[in-house]
Amino acid sequence: MSDSSDDKLLFTPGPLTTSRTVKEAMLRDLGSRDVEFIEIVRSIRERLLDIGGVSKDGGYEAVPVQGSGTFGIESVISSVVPDNGKLLVFINGAYGRRIETIARRCGVVVTSIEWSENEPIPADEVARILGRATDVTHVAVVHCETTSGVMNPVEEIGAAVQAAGRVFIVDAMSSFGGTAIDVGRARIDFLISSSNKCIEGVPGFSFVIARRAALLQAEGVALSVSLDLFAQWEGLEKNGQFRFTPPTHALLAFDQALKELDEEGGVVARAARYRRNHEVLLVGMRELGFKEYVPREHQSWIITTFHYPADPKFDFNVFYDKLSERGMVIYPGKLTEVDCFRIGNIGRLDESHIRALLEAIREVVVELGIECP
Amino acid sequence: MSDSSDDKLLFTPGPLTTSRTVKEAMLRDLGSRDVEFIEIVRSIRERLLDIGGVSKDGGYEAVPVQGSGTFGIESVISSVVPDNGKLLVFINGAYGRRIETIARRCGVVVTSIEWSENEPIPADEVARILGRATDVTHVAVVHCETTSGVMNPVEEIGAAVQAAGRVFIVDAMSSFGGTAIDVGRARIDFLISSSNKCIEGVPGFSFVIARRAALLQAEGVALSVSLDLFAQWEGLEKNGQFRFTPPTHALLAFDQALKELDEEGGVVARAARYRRNHEVLLVGMRELGFKEYVPREHQSWIITTFHYPADPKFDFNVFYDKLSERGMVIYPGKLTEVDCFRIGNIGRLDESHIRALLEAIREVVVELGIECP
Repeated sequence: MSDSSDDKLLFTPGPLTTSRTVKEAMLRDLGSRDVEFIEIVRSIRERLLDIGGVSKDGGYEAVPVQGSGTFGIESVISSVVPDNGKLLVFINGAYGRRIETIARRCGVVVTSIEWSENEPIPADEVARILGRATDVTHVAVVHCETTSGVMNPVEEIGAAVQAAGRVFIVDAMSSFGGTAIDVGRARIDFLISSSNKCIEGVPGFSFVIARRAALLQAEGVALSVSLDLFAQWEGLEKNGQFRFTPPTHALLAFDQALKELDEEGGVVARAARYRRNHEVLLVGMRELGFKEYVPREHQSWIITTFHYPADPKFDFNVFYDKLSERGMVIYPGKLTEVDCFRIGNIGRLDESHIRALLEAIREVVVELGIECP
Repeated sequence: MSDSSDDKLLFTPGPLTTSRTVKEAMLRDLGSRDVEFIEIVRSIRERLLDIGGVSKDGGYEAVPVQGSGTFGIESVISSVVPDNGKLLVFINGAYGRRIETIARRCGVVVTSIEWSENEPIPADEVARILGRATDVTHVAVVHCETTSGVMNPVEEIGAAVQAAGRVFIVDAMSSFGGTAIDVGRARIDFLISSSNKCIEGVPGFSFVIARRAALLQAEGVALSVSLDLFAQWEGLEKNGQFRFTPPTHALLAFDQALKELDEEGGVVARAARYRRNHEVLLVGMRELGFKEYVPREHQSWIITTFHYPADPKFDFNVFYDKLSERGMVIYPGKLTEVDCFRIGNIGRLDESHIRALLEAIREVVVELGIECP
């Protein structure tokens, strides 16, 4: 992977470091209603279903939505839960909480149950809770909670949700394309992800993979024109075009990113590279005296979360800036309940980049005189 | 202007043909929370106010919103009209009608008055109507109605709206940057435009120029998280960052596009180029026997609308395809009440491109054997 520019490396959950060729795909201006662009959009939608292990013939649809991942989440939440429905969100991090916030703001009847941020949501508990919560019609969960990197068992949760006869919504923002997800086997009705995560495109749109029968229920539900998921799908089906101007360049980049995902060997190969990044990082950080927050067996290879060192000399902002000066951008800010920082393993990065980051962290720790046990 | 690629020329209202250098600005990956990117966003916001003839010190704010122009419109309409408010939309085309549709869907109390699509909205009528419509709190109008290219007199309308003490919302999607607008003098409270119009950036976001005192009234009004204009502004003010992932590459392109607008000589020079494009087109089309739809004095230089020739052999789809084969993409479809087609004059195009288009139209007319009177 020598195709990076002079930009800093992004060890974040997106925007990511992308390949030169993905960015070069944006050196064109295509009309959004022109046949060539319409064919690119059609092909992207088809390949997204492929990655999810489903197909149009099998009853699924891929619907791109302009804006960031949060726009995609709001598009689903505000479009698919009807007035007489009730959403239950199982939360173990900031992104689960955001789903609840969105639902509340959009006037969706919503309730939630919260777990610790370093523990996966237990599927047997979900089954037990749904047995009692007979008024709940829709269930939402985050696949990989980017707050901590903890991975929730969506297949087991999906089985429980289906057994209870509810609609299942999965925020797979940071996992889709970087970890195998079989949308059908996991009984997912609506999965949301975005262009600038594990597919390694640039930011500009999100996308929804929907079971068509569930999507058809969404007609006329949304209290929004821009974020009306059903109308967006209907428009694309009618003439292959977005209803409103699409981010043409981000879609061209995504088309190229999908080709490169394929060339790499698909999701399995990409997941293996990310996993290797994560493992090299984890071993290296432990050697430097850092300790991970999420137990290893529940930690995704998407991002990795470490406790602050106990040494009071550790100041995260100084640590972040010193790494940034060395061309290494880690995840700024903290979202977790405890004092932790996060490092992303995704994007056009491999083991050599992780080793460079580890070396930079070692230098900064020495420079700042921080004691790591 | 020799920096175009091999792509077809886009004689449309956006996405547009942009300069090579605008697209090349996207060959970078910047972290959306990194200082360099934050500075670019700050600078873009400042320059947008400049273009509108206003400033932060003068009480105005620029707020970018992810998604297409329609997302920006919905962000304003759904964020600024309170429950006890009422919106009046003055309509003379499809984009005015869209504002009404958005308001209705978002649960905003709305009414509208419609004019013919080839006539500007008369400011004295606006004043008279507002005198009677005492329950109306907000007024919306489109500046250049892209349906026909007719230009509405926003300064005169703004004076009437201010005299009546109402809030004034202007959809300046296709005009901002390509025609001089003084936001203060036109008494505009909220102006909306987008990245891929006369600033000549790529699609990916819209932006709002707001009078701060009016914006502050929007706190807590929106029934949306993603499109909450007040929260978007508040987030940007807090730490310079977007609340949710911005289209980083589209913003880099826009930053470059603003530099190129400045190098060209600002809005005055750009307007002169577009005006020249429009005039060359109008003269050439008349020579070919076509007739414009909007009377010359009301026609903007943004897009130009022509009647279909009376000859029954004229089929717009064939005409469009034949031009597209020659590398010239005009505005597909029709929006107007009468049989018309539209040609955009904006984007990285000058007189030489218009002459090339005219030659292609001449060839197609001859090839299809169409009689133009």
